[in-house]
Amino acid sequence: MSERAPVEPYDVVDLITQKRFARQLSRPEIEWLVDAYVRGAVAPEQMSALLMAVVIQGMERGEIQALTAAMIASGERMSFAGMGRPTIDKHSTGGVGDKITLPLVPLMASLGVAVPQLSGRGLGHTGGTLDKLESIPGWRALLSNEEMERVLREVGGVICAAGSGLAPADRAMYALRDVTGTVASVPLIASSIMSKKIAEGADGLVLDVKFGSGAFLASMEDARELAETMVRLGQDSGMRTVALLTDMDTPLGRAVGNANEVRESVEVLAGGGPRDVVELTLGLARTMLELAGFEDVDPEPALANGAAMDAWQRMIRAQGGDPDAPLPVARETETVRAAADGIVQRVDARDVGVAAWRLGAGRARPGDAVDHAAGVEVLVKPGDRVRAGDPLFVAACDNPARMERGLSLLAEAVELGAEQPPHRPLIAGRVA
Amino acid sequence: MSERAPVEPYDVVDLITQKRFARQLSRPEIEWLVDAYVRGAVAPEQMSALLMAVVIQGMERGEIQALTAAMIASGERMSFAGMGRPTIDKHSTGGVGDKITLPLVPLMASLGVAVPQLSGRGLGHTGGTLDKLESIPGWRALLSNEEMERVLREVGGVICAAGSGLAPADRAMYALRDVTGTVASVPLIASSIMSKKIAEGADGLVLDVKFGSGAFLASMEDARELAETMVRLGQDSGMRTVALLTDMDTPLGRAVGNANEVRESVEVLAGGGPRDVVELTLGLARTMLELAGFEDVDPEPALANGAAMDAWQRMIRAQGGDPDAPLPVARETETVRAAADGIVQRVDARDVGVAAWRLGAGRARPGDAVDHAAGVEVLVKPGDRVRAGDPLFVAACDNPARMERGLSLLAEAVELGAEQPPHRPLIAGRVA
Repeated sequence: MSERAPVEPYDVVDLITQKRFARQLSRPEIEWLVDAYVRGAVAPEQMSALLMAVVIQGMERGEIQALTAAMIASGERMSFAGMGRPTIDKHSTGGVGDKITLPLVPLMASLGVAVPQLSGRGLGHTGGTLDKLESIPGWRALLSNEEMERVLREVGGVICAAGSGLAPADRAMYALRDVTGTVASVPLIASSIMSKKIAEGADGLVLDVKFGSGAFLASMEDARELAETMVRLGQDSGMRTVALLTDMDTPLGRAVGNANEVRESVEVLAGGGPRDVVELTLGLARTMLELAGFEDVDPEPALANGAAMDAWQRMIRAQGGDPDAPLPVARETETVRAAADGIVQRVDARDVGVAAWRLGAGRARPGDAVDHAAGVEVLVKPGDRVRAGDPLFVAACDNPARMERGLSLLAEAVELGAEQPPHRPLIAGRVA
Repeated sequence: MSERAPVEPYDVVDLITQKRFARQLSRPEIEWLVDAYVRGAVAPEQMSALLMAVVIQGMERGEIQALTAAMIASGERMSFAGMGRPTIDKHSTGGVGDKITLPLVPLMASLGVAVPQLSGRGLGHTGGTLDKLESIPGWRALLSNEEMERVLREVGGVICAAGSGLAPADRAMYALRDVTGTVASVPLIASSIMSKKIAEGADGLVLDVKFGSGAFLASMEDARELAETMVRLGQDSGMRTVALLTDMDTPLGRAVGNANEVRESVEVLAGGGPRDVVELTLGLARTMLELAGFEDVDPEPALANGAAMDAWQRMIRAQGGDPDAPLPVARETETVRAAADGIVQRVDARDVGVAAWRLGAGRARPGDAVDHAAGVEVLVKPGDRVRAGDPLFVAACDNPARMERGLSLLAEAVELGAEQPPHRPLIAGRVA
């Protein structure tokens, strides 16, 4: 037996240097890098240098494909082939007040499209779907693969925590990117998201790629580039994939937080709710129906006639939750009021998201607890006319220091002007 | 007492992101980064990502100054103010057959200029001054600061290992750069070299910045940029600094290895030796004399009249070496011969350096032993006319496998042609 480490086929310093000079890495080189990082043969400080070179120099289409494939190969692949109906997945790049998954999954289930929604928790100013649902007493995010398939089969939709079996290399790389300033990169974001989505093995995928102050990409051009990259990766893997480009400059709906977002989602499932939340829910639903081959189905009636609400209640109960139980409410609220008369020009989604985070609705570090009752009620939209003293926001939080920090940001979040602001369509574009 | 870690004034991810977008970092930010890395508050994977961003995006003059100052501040500063004569330091960026320090230091000592030469060991295809001197039986590289000052005072020159007290932050960063593909960067190389040289505290510094196949910078333009950056750093710190740009496309002299380079150096000190070694030794000596204020002194006679040789013998003895002891010689040699008639166009310094390394004269990893007897004798220079069968190189090495690998490279190292090649001046330029 030899005591020596196995001979590696590549020299990592050489590959880092290639990428530093913007050269393309080959598929075998990328496969080796991902595998060697997981095995510990490539050290974190080597991978982070390589990732920074990728962030600055970019990656070609073939490299992004190889990276995605290598991350998929690091874990298990799921299949819903025996489900007896089309499975269409959905992913949002994250926004402020973005609770769309909550009404959308039961709506699709009620229309015969299975949605296996493996979600994450929030970090920073954008909330996480699981955090919102955990406001519901008894509801469990963590399901075994068997439980997940059972809920999906019985209800037609499931929202649960992504297990550690899918693309573990992506999880390891993301943890590194998070602390090394290498998150913001189209090739790395696209391969991270798509490796998990392709490993999930749905028939189709609708991506909600957001832009604007509340999204992590400010410009629509960057969002389009990310959308095009992800759609290509999905299509190349044989999965029908479409992306909508949606405006995240203004918070979605009125509620930003956790329990209050569940409440707003239930309003939508009851046929009401804020106009923008309904518009985006239906827009994504129509795109998912199209990928499922159900072009002629109109999703709107299912919100009005209780079918989607029924699916919601079954879905929550199937994971131990009580859909009728009262949701947590903060004892203390404070109202932020307009300082002057005017027409609302902008309600800065980022400011509102950071304010909700400071109030306790989000976490600064993975593993931190969130306050399900904390959050913001957004009472105005761009174009609304207000008078001095009119309420703009209601902040909810039981911790006085946090309340102070949240309020100071909300005071800055609304911009008033004399003219009607230009209209910004919520669904601004589509890729594929 | 609080259990919490001290609050850091900066967020490292934010600073990495600044540099990723090519923004300038401030002096306090850079000071904090270096200090926090040494303290462990910035992790290696964070520092390597930042370094890669610097490698690609560069640094402005003020940033390079701040980085150099922060590395100096991490350790001790020396001073030779009480030496009673000018102290002029010398640094070469490293080459193949570059033994110039060996004759140069005693030559300067014999002329009344003190040279405190803190040197390193070789890594890869360029040799290290200490490795060469360790061919001499009994000679010790490791001196205490007190011993070093005593030798410098008594002999006028000293060549010894740089202690761990000078710029320890640079040592930590260099070890990281070495494994993360972040070595080749003008700001990082310049600040690494100059932090140690400024901390040494000599009155002046002459830099030998090499270009060509045997140097780590191939083009003269890159070498000039590095030279200008280093000269600015030296001058900004109040140290008289000049750089010569010298051609490293052809090995320097005939000997490439360790003991054979000492032998060649002794030839120079005896008034003989290869023309190029003498030319560069005198060129650097004249520049050092100029910085010492001894413009009118001609260094050439000291090589002819034995004064430099006396200083050499005293210097070697002061560190325990026997200058008259026989040097190690390999039992086996092989001659590489010309395959055809022609005029030598190039003798590739890199090929010869790598061949000597493979023969055992260099090390692949810090801490490896070197074979002092192994090396290459270079028998031709560009412009020489050879006939088929004429000897080009003699390789010396007692390990048959290594001999094989060295010979295969030497067979490729000489390029023959029909015309006289263009003349390349050895000293091709000067900065400051």
